[in-house]
Amino acid sequence: MIPRYARPDMVAIWSPETKFRIWYEIEAHACDAQAALGVIPAESAAAVWKANDVEFNVARIDEIEAVTKHDVIAFLTHLAEIIGHSEARFVHQGMTSSDVLDTTLNVQLVRAADILIADMEKLLAALKTRAIEHKMDVRIGRSHGIHAEPVTMGLTFARFYAEMDRGLARLRNARAEIATGAISGAVGTFANIDPAVEAHVCEKLGLTPEPISTQVIPRDRHAMFFATLGVIASSIENIAIEIRHMQRTEVLEAEEFFSKGQKGSSAMPHKRNPVLTENLTGLARLVRMTVVPAMENVALWHERDISHSSVERGIAPDATVTLDFALARLTGVIEKLVIYPDNMMRNLNQFRGLVHSQRVLLALTQKGVSREDAYRLVQRNAMKVWEEGKDFQTELLGDAEVTAAMSPDEIAENFDLGHHTKHVDTIFARVFGPS
Amino acid sequence: MIPRYARPDMVAIWSPETKFRIWYEIEAHACDAQAALGVIPAESAAAVWKANDVEFNVARIDEIEAVTKHDVIAFLTHLAEIIGHSEARFVHQGMTSSDVLDTTLNVQLVRAADILIADMEKLLAALKTRAIEHKMDVRIGRSHGIHAEPVTMGLTFARFYAEMDRGLARLRNARAEIATGAISGAVGTFANIDPAVEAHVCEKLGLTPEPISTQVIPRDRHAMFFATLGVIASSIENIAIEIRHMQRTEVLEAEEFFSKGQKGSSAMPHKRNPVLTENLTGLARLVRMTVVPAMENVALWHERDISHSSVERGIAPDATVTLDFALARLTGVIEKLVIYPDNMMRNLNQFRGLVHSQRVLLALTQKGVSREDAYRLVQRNAMKVWEEGKDFQTELLGDAEVTAAMSPDEIAENFDLGHHTKHVDTIFARVFGPS
Amino acid sequence: MIPRYARPDMVAIWSPETKFRIWYEIEAHACDAQAALGVIPAESAAAVWKANDVEFNVARIDEIEAVTKHDVIAFLTHLAEIIGHSEARFVHQGMTSSDVLDTTLNVQLVRAADILIADMEKLLAALKTRAIEHKMDVRIGRSHGIHAEPVTMGLTFARFYAEMDRGLARLRNARAEIATGAISGAVGTFANIDPAVEAHVCEKLGLTPEPISTQVIPRDRHAMFFATLGVIASSIENIAIEIRHMQRTEVLEAEEFFSKGQKGSSAMPHKRNPVLTENLTGLARLVRMTVVPAMENVALWHERDISHSSVERGIAPDATVTLDFALARLTGVIEKLVIYPDNMMRNLNQFRGLVHSQRVLLALTQKGVSREDAYRLVQRNAMKVWEEGKDFQTELLGDAEVTAAMSPDEIAENFDLGHHTKHVDTIFARVFGPS
Amino acid sequence: MIPRYARPDMVAIWSPETKFRIWYEIEAHACDAQAALGVIPAESAAAVWKANDVEFNVARIDEIEAVTKHDVIAFLTHLAEIIGHSEARFVHQGMTSSDVLDTTLNVQLVRAADILIADMEKLLAALKTRAIEHKMDVRIGRSHGIHAEPVTMGLTFARFYAEMDRGLARLRNARAEIATGAISGAVGTFANIDPAVEAHVCEKLGLTPEPISTQVIPRDRHAMFFATLGVIASSIENIAIEIRHMQRTEVLEAEEFFSKGQKGSSAMPHKRNPVLTENLTGLARLVRMTVVPAMENVALWHERDISHSSVERGIAPDATVTLDFALARLTGVIEKLVIYPDNMMRNLNQFRGLVHSQRVLLALTQKGVSREDAYRLVQRNAMKVWEEGKDFQTELLGDAEVTAAMSPDEIAENFDLGHHTKHVDTIFARVFGPS
Repeated sequence: MIPRYARPDMVAIWSPETKFRIWYEIEAHACDAQAALGVIPAESAAAVWKANDVEFNVARIDEIEAVTKHDVIAFLTHLAEIIGHSEARFVHQGMTSSDVLDTTLNVQLVRAADILIADMEKLLAALKTRAIEHKMDVRIGRSHGIHAEPVTMGLTFARFYAEMDRGLARLRNARAEIATGAISGAVGTFANIDPAVEAHVCEKLGLTPEPISTQVIPRDRHAMFFATLGVIASSIENIAIEIRHMQRTEVLEAEEFFSKGQKGSSAMPHKRNPVLTENLTGLARLVRMTVVPAMENVALWHERDISHSSVERGIAPDATVTLDFALARLTGVIEKLVIYPDNMMRNLNQFRGLVHSQRVLLALTQKGVSREDAYRLVQRNAMKVWEEGKDFQTELLGDAEVTAAMSPDEIAENFDLGHHTKHVDTIFARVFGPS
Repeated sequence: MIPRYARPDMVAIWSPETKFRIWYEIEAHACDAQAALGVIPAESAAAVWKANDVEFNVARIDEIEAVTKHDVIAFLTHLAEIIGHSEARFVHQGMTSSDVLDTTLNVQLVRAADILIADMEKLLAALKTRAIEHKMDVRIGRSHGIHAEPVTMGLTFARFYAEMDRGLARLRNARAEIATGAISGAVGTFANIDPAVEAHVCEKLGLTPEPISTQVIPRDRHAMFFATLGVIASSIENIAIEIRHMQRTEVLEAEEFFSKGQKGSSAMPHKRNPVLTENLTGLARLVRMTVVPAMENVALWHERDISHSSVERGIAPDATVTLDFALARLTGVIEKLVIYPDNMMRNLNQFRGLVHSQRVLLALTQKGVSREDAYRLVQRNAMKVWEEGKDFQTELLGDAEVTAAMSPDEIAENFDLGHHTKHVDTIFARVFGPS
Repeated sequence: MIPRYARPDMVAIWSPETKFRIWYEIEAHACDAQAALGVIPAESAAAVWKANDVEFNVARIDEIEAVTKHDVIAFLTHLAEIIGHSEARFVHQGMTSSDVLDTTLNVQLVRAADILIADMEKLLAALKTRAIEHKMDVRIGRSHGIHAEPVTMGLTFARFYAEMDRGLARLRNARAEIATGAISGAVGTFANIDPAVEAHVCEKLGLTPEPISTQVIPRDRHAMFFATLGVIASSIENIAIEIRHMQRTEVLEAEEFFSKGQKGSSAMPHKRNPVLTENLTGLARLVRMTVVPAMENVALWHERDISHSSVERGIAPDATVTLDFALARLTGVIEKLVIYPDNMMRNLNQFRGLVHSQRVLLALTQKGVSREDAYRLVQRNAMKVWEEGKDFQTELLGDAEVTAAMSPDEIAENFDLGHHTKHVDTIFARVFGPS
Repeated sequence: MIPRYARPDMVAIWSPETKFRIWYEIEAHACDAQAALGVIPAESAAAVWKANDVEFNVARIDEIEAVTKHDVIAFLTHLAEIIGHSEARFVHQGMTSSDVLDTTLNVQLVRAADILIADMEKLLAALKTRAIEHKMDVRIGRSHGIHAEPVTMGLTFARFYAEMDRGLARLRNARAEIATGAISGAVGTFANIDPAVEAHVCEKLGLTPEPISTQVIPRDRHAMFFATLGVIASSIENIAIEIRHMQRTEVLEAEEFFSKGQKGSSAMPHKRNPVLTENLTGLARLVRMTVVPAMENVALWHERDISHSSVERGIAPDATVTLDFALARLTGVIEKLVIYPDNMMRNLNQFRGLVHSQRVLLALTQKGVSREDAYRLVQRNAMKVWEEGKDFQTELLGDAEVTAAMSPDEIAENFDLGHHTKHVDTIFARVFGPS
């Protein structure tokens, strides 16, 4: 996790304090369930809750771990120091460290997913706002980086909205997949603990019991989780690249917001760099790189080996913290993006009407001109535009063969941008629902 | 695609014949819709269906493409040769090549998904059969490759079933996500074609109209599709690794089926190599490697660039063909896997009862022996087993301090394997539903 | 391997014919060495060379393999059919299939590397030619996609030359690393074959004996090979992205060559798409995706497992064939790239001299103006350029406070492009050596 | 970077203190060079060295950066606070932030490489020691996880030595590739700074001037660096997997060192988990995952975009810190690995001589027995071993048809392990040089 690309709420999920708190809750709920089953005394279970308002002393736990070389035992020892060694006797009974560790990881991933879901909802709101705002602002559509036909800036935002909305649905699926817990013992057979304990703990933590676990929860769930983050990161890159293109000096249809005071702007007023979206391009790679190791983690030996653990210590905080930051940064970029409709129109008109040449071609054939003739007519006027800088419509109006087939009004009609925006409402209704 | 790892049905999806057939259907249905809208003559639309039973001549299309340098135009030219140039005049009107190409790719991916879904259903059936067959066959569970506590072979199959069942659900999601089509024109604005055409074509092809497309269907859908295949491949690797471990010379709890006649087996009867599951381990990597490029494909420039196309020409056939083959191969391995319950029991008993030491420890404390004393008692008997090759239960029965706390029957109870299998029914009901 | 992205020489390396030929040479040379050691009769070794001019019948070998289920045995059987079963008796003696297979793979990779090396040399020649041609053609340098300071088109080509030259050096290293062979028996101990056989075969095939092999040649060598291809592919992407940017409608400093006859060009003369470099962007991903599985192949179980084999059947042809095609395509693009110096100058001057604002700032301070004052002076004139479309130099000349510090000539000097090109010779000498 | 998988020396390279120190040295050396050129006053250059023994105040620099939003300016401001604003006036003249930042990154990578090189040298020493120690200790070689023919434990260590020695050579190459610096200005043209400054700074920092840079040093160098780390990490995984296999309960030919006091060992003396090598398996994935983003970083827009920067903030410390830790951990594992020659021999003899069946087969044919008969003889005796638990040599000695062809001594000779170790010296000489 890179401090400058981290936000506190997500970082907090991965803190030792949060981890120990979840461990505590698992142990305490498990004791309640064990007491209900009559396995341990009710008073002992009740006693564990004495620590409910205590903030665990991470330094102390680390100190104990330095001796015991075992993190869960260190925690339990510290817990016993708080609630009394005698009362603590029954804590963790019948459980395996992994019952606590693996269930905790999933609680953390679920919480991380909840933050990411909220992030995406904010991003969607921003995209929708800008889509509606620029719904009918025409700009040139480009394929291969080359001018094609007109679109609107609203459509650009709307397609990012649709893409991120799919991402949100995927994230909700991934959250549901990862929201399981397991309290099933050393090899998952419940040999020393009743499944009722698992059921109770999971219910309290908002999880579903893992139908069949080994010592650990199966890692295909985690692989799917990180793969989903990887797809969302790729969509972030998609938006970032569009904005970087829009901000190119020669294009300049939009700019990342640049506060007045930012140094150096006025001596080189053109030098406003899209550093936020460039940064997002890189952050997307950082999230995406966690996908393959998460997949490599799936194949564990027999009932578990611990190869996945070091990987997850890295990628779980890294991917969630980075994606949270990236989504928030992107939301800010979208909200404050400065749009330049005049430049959009300037670019659209760069070739003085040539963008409409296909439409003119079609119109001529619909007027009965043969395909070959229509092509020849369009071509000879187009070349004057291209080579001599003439205006396409003017040239057509001055070409007798063209005007023989189409009236000036009919010619002008092909230059009407409304032709390209007539279905924007339809598309918006598909994306945002009926307004 | 590697011929020896390819099955004909999946390969056929990616043949030129299939591709041209889908192109044809898209064009023909589009003509119907255009005719219904009054855009083209009904007779022209009807005429297109004259080619419905024709098998397109791939060589002829290639020949035309060599001249026109454009695959869709080459196809349309060939179609015109079949239905007549005059009738063919209205085919493709208002459409863009990508309308055809991108919708076709999704049709192919949907069909591929359907084969993969059927593959997974067969695999699930095989896993379930073997799980039930070996439901109560005890084997030693292992964590870190080291003996832990008993499980059953049925549980091993059941957890693979559960994992693949999740994979199937994910695949169904991925199929739904990719089942969209777009007939929206050069930049997705429907400037020259009515959305009704898209709706009609999609309905006929079993697709949903893409809510908002550009020149292409957004690539986050494809990224999610390949990511899902990558997770399934990782689960295949997971099963393959388990079988390879089971077949190790020193373990030999199971073997891939080895037909009597296979050369060399009888002079070196121990030399039966798990080559199928080793192969599956490699195939999993081949599928998984397509995930990152699919994600890199998401960020296209503006309304499209064609960088994704060469990638998809590679990974779409490769990933689906390889995964289809791998699933089928794995199903065969599972169906015919030779299980050795005697060896399972031999391995379980390798340390003459030591596997039960934890249970004895717990039993002693439950009998009122202090934790420290119980540990000391277990330890001194365990060490005799470990260092002198004694039998654990016999040693315990001969240790006066132990027998003072537990009767012989109570001691023996800890060696009862039923303790470890008592919740197998519960777990099976979770995985397979109530029986 | 995707046929349309494949060239015949590289494809031929991966054909069954080539493979069997290499197998044959290994077996024949091994027989010579065995005869020299007195292990087999000299006549038998000599007899093997009777097949030297025979083209092996792949169909026949496949037919035999269908029965024997073993590719090397099938080949040896076919060889015996050619040279006589009695003479063939000693072929392959003491050897293991992997001795043949693994050595063959490395021969193929070495040959592939040789083609790639030749490809890169051609690419370097093209880059150098264009660098020299446009050595002093000034264009605007851009950071973050935003105009910065002038560079030359020659420098652009020169830096790609330098990058590809590093790639070539890396490829030569990778070739050297992969140029090993092993004839060391089932587990690499030479138990049944003398190391002299390996030495002889390797020498004849242009390989170095692998210092220590198991059943196979260690896979870190192959991982390094594919990693190197991945880096070269990334450099291809780097060049491709630059050209795609240069060809953007709004930039248009260069274009991929577009033959006169290419359809559709004249009605939409602006619509020339950089499809080759877009394609190269995708091809780079296809090569790069082979790196991770090649690395996953390194960890084999004990003296070998065969998980690497299916991976290599895919990635070895795919990566080399695709990279060969990509290098050749890129060379063609570079050779024929159409450069537009006028547009380069037009873009450079887009902000009427503002590109020189930093230099003016520096010049003022060197004239004794305080940093704060210099900044204020530059800023107020720059803003007139930016907001009112004025010419920067003209404004400066009309600003009394500026002219008090600098004479008109001194002002003009800052607008001299020679300032930016004065070290181009130096850089060229570094890249291409003294001219 | 994960604190528990980090060692202080490598972590220190990536600290702000180290970074600012390198920045300082670059600036100070640049001033010297500028003074030598007469560009700035010699006294000003000399004054910069007043800060040579000062430890920069990171908190103060952060404070300034919070205002200026620019890290290099913040540093320069702090430097001016130390050496005096007037003296500091000429610091950084003609330079661009990237001149400092990019050169610094390479200095850090070079230093990281130096630590890694030292790590690998220690690992090599450990591997060599263990190889020599167990040079002739025979164990069964395994292909596909199945017993094949004998090898020695020394050979196992020797092949890891050879693999890591290749890794070291690659790392030295990668270090050389990354050891460049650039002080070439905003777009790499040296417009405002003489190449002599770059030459001087690079010489002082132990770098080579980058022959042609843009605003940044080309990223193919970095891609190669991380790719190399990825290959080394894969070799770590290779060794880790071997040890994990050796430590499996059923194999137990070696164990990670387990200190007497480690809790829980004596009640479950068999439960010693190879947690260090499992951990290394995961760490290898963490290093390897940085390869693809490093390759994605190569394609920057024009003279630079900053997308690579966030990636490198993550992967540069992460990959080097993790690999350093992993190499050191592996060295410890190797040094202290407990080897069990008795178990090695027990496993070798698991099938009571069957491991020699191939040799017997060969010996029979060399005695003139036809291939078919030899096979039949071996097979019928082998099956008695396999199915009835007999001893292979005993059975052969009791088979009249066998003894007709071979004397008891001749039979026994095939069971001599010396046959398999006779070339160990040869191999060791290849790997370690003549002894």
